[in-house]
Amino acid sequence: MTKKIILDTDPGIDDVMAILFAEAHPDIELKAITTIYGNVAIAGATHNALYLKQKYGFGADVAEGASKPIVRPPVGPTVAVHGESGFGDVQVPADVAGEADSRPAYQYIIDAVTAEPNEITLVAIGPLTNLALALKAEPNIVNLVKEVVIMGGAFGVNDHRGNVTPYAEANIHDDPHAADIVFGAAWPVVIIGLDVTEQSFFTADYLDQLRDDAAEVGQFIWDVSRFYLKFYKEKVGLNACHVHDPSAIAYVIKPELFTLREGPVRVVTEGPAEGMTIQKFDGRQYMHDEWQTQTSQRIGVAVNDSELLEIYRQTIIDYGQKQR
Amino acid sequence: MTKKIILDTDPGIDDVMAILFAEAHPDIELKAITTIYGNVAIAGATHNALYLKQKYGFGADVAEGASKPIVRPPVGPTVAVHGESGFGDVQVPADVAGEADSRPAYQYIIDAVTAEPNEITLVAIGPLTNLALALKAEPNIVNLVKEVVIMGGAFGVNDHRGNVTPYAEANIHDDPHAADIVFGAAWPVVIIGLDVTEQSFFTADYLDQLRDDAAEVGQFIWDVSRFYLKFYKEKVGLNACHVHDPSAIAYVIKPELFTLREGPVRVVTEGPAEGMTIQKFDGRQYMHDEWQTQTSQRIGVAVNDSELLEIYRQTIIDYGQKQR
Repeated sequence: MTKKIILDTDPGIDDVMAILFAEAHPDIELKAITTIYGNVAIAGATHNALYLKQKYGFGADVAEGASKPIVRPPVGPTVAVHGESGFGDVQVPADVAGEADSRPAYQYIIDAVTAEPNEITLVAIGPLTNLALALKAEPNIVNLVKEVVIMGGAFGVNDHRGNVTPYAEANIHDDPHAADIVFGAAWPVVIIGLDVTEQSFFTADYLDQLRDDAAEVGQFIWDVSRFYLKFYKEKVGLNACHVHDPSAIAYVIKPELFTLREGPVRVVTEGPAEGMTIQKFDGRQYMHDEWQTQTSQRIGVAVNDSELLEIYRQTIIDYGQKQR
Repeated sequence: MTKKIILDTDPGIDDVMAILFAEAHPDIELKAITTIYGNVAIAGATHNALYLKQKYGFGADVAEGASKPIVRPPVGPTVAVHGESGFGDVQVPADVAGEADSRPAYQYIIDAVTAEPNEITLVAIGPLTNLALALKAEPNIVNLVKEVVIMGGAFGVNDHRGNVTPYAEANIHDDPHAADIVFGAAWPVVIIGLDVTEQSFFTADYLDQLRDDAAEVGQFIWDVSRFYLKFYKEKVGLNACHVHDPSAIAYVIKPELFTLREGPVRVVTEGPAEGMTIQKFDGRQYMHDEWQTQTSQRIGVAVNDSELLEIYRQTIIDYGQKQR
């Protein structure tokens, strides 16, 4: 059965990889792209989404989201990782044909899930501000959303603790207060964090092969990924990049790829560990326990990386053939 | 060579076990006991220290410390673990002969380390308020103290994450701001946290044997530990107790019992993870990194528990013989 998703994204190089994955896979109906600041500023994020929509003829709506976090001062776009445009060295044309929906992203989300109760999965691969704003404006959406799938956070599993601070992942660090609201709400959340996304790798060879096998879309993914791979080589010491945002899409397509762990999740919102995600998973009772009354959520702790990579490869190749 | 220590403590059942261990061991000169709220309120802590001093004829001074944390509201004494008196079911006489030093603990510490530069090790087995106050009043003590040994915190090693909250240990949870000051100061700190203290056990049998072998002092340790063991049986599901405070003394006696890990340590001071201790130990560079400029400290990550238990046993037996 096809799964309807709204993809909340800050495109972003691995966001492009994820957006195309979602659009390409036959089991997913990409209903809308809602944009958010993060890898790029909000205007760039919306522009990039509209550009992809035009370039590949997406049926998806585009709705523009928040320009800044709900409490903390903005961290600023990650130009060092995603380049000035967000697409690395790839220039995005200044003119694109389409326009964003007139509603802000949070309102679009509320309206969409109200119109189709329990049909829509929210997939968020950027800072969680739009989702938190939607929850604030209409708390009842917790009963209308089918599932919430998040790329973000790091729980220390497999020694993955953070990427922008020693203990925080970028999406959560960008708006820890929003993340704490989203994880604490009474809807089913699956968190695909660094614990699993750093266990899968798009190697330079894998991306070269995708360029050779997947026609124009393969070439485009290869083009946008040059800047990203350069960052990984220089700063992380890898001739590859982690599979961050596409892992959330992979979860939607085939949840069995991931091993999950249950328990309430909180986010540190202040101090040096700001943006750290913490799950209570031992079921013990403590004298003082702010997790006790929280909704239990699920986080990814292991992934079948080889199958994930094969699904991605085949999906993009098939899409490339179709686009010809 | 004998090591001079000032023992900062909130006695407390495992504090008694630690105080007697320090007094009994020939390699330690117990110069002073400074008291702190925690397991009991401050008046009780000082009274209990003076009682022990009188009962066993300690040469150590007793100085009374802080009654409450420096920022957060007081958590309150852990009566459920240590009983009303702090010594479990054991009644402490209302009258004790000695008196506390006229100076507050933080001033006593400053004066003592100034008088004997680089001779004194501070061993703190309660909330770290006194040490933080001493640092505030006289920052130069970082150059006068030989070493600081702390029982407190939990770093997730060996799956030990917290005991009073899912992610915080009691001493640090009682005053996280003080702990962050103490760990961040430019003096050498060794932190013996739950990561190692929960790896050693005083079993019911071990304590029975100590009662049989160690004369009056063995009986006294057995008596005070009844309430503690009952708590462990009912709440933790163990017919034993962890070796918390005595582990810090064991480190002073024989550091080689412990495997240490280096790196700056911070404490979460707000929110649900309040009191969580976090060490950056990967040496990586991050875009945002409040650990970067911090002093590197050492935390215990493994312990030779059988040797620790044997040293404790033999020390208390020898002391019991001497006391006869």
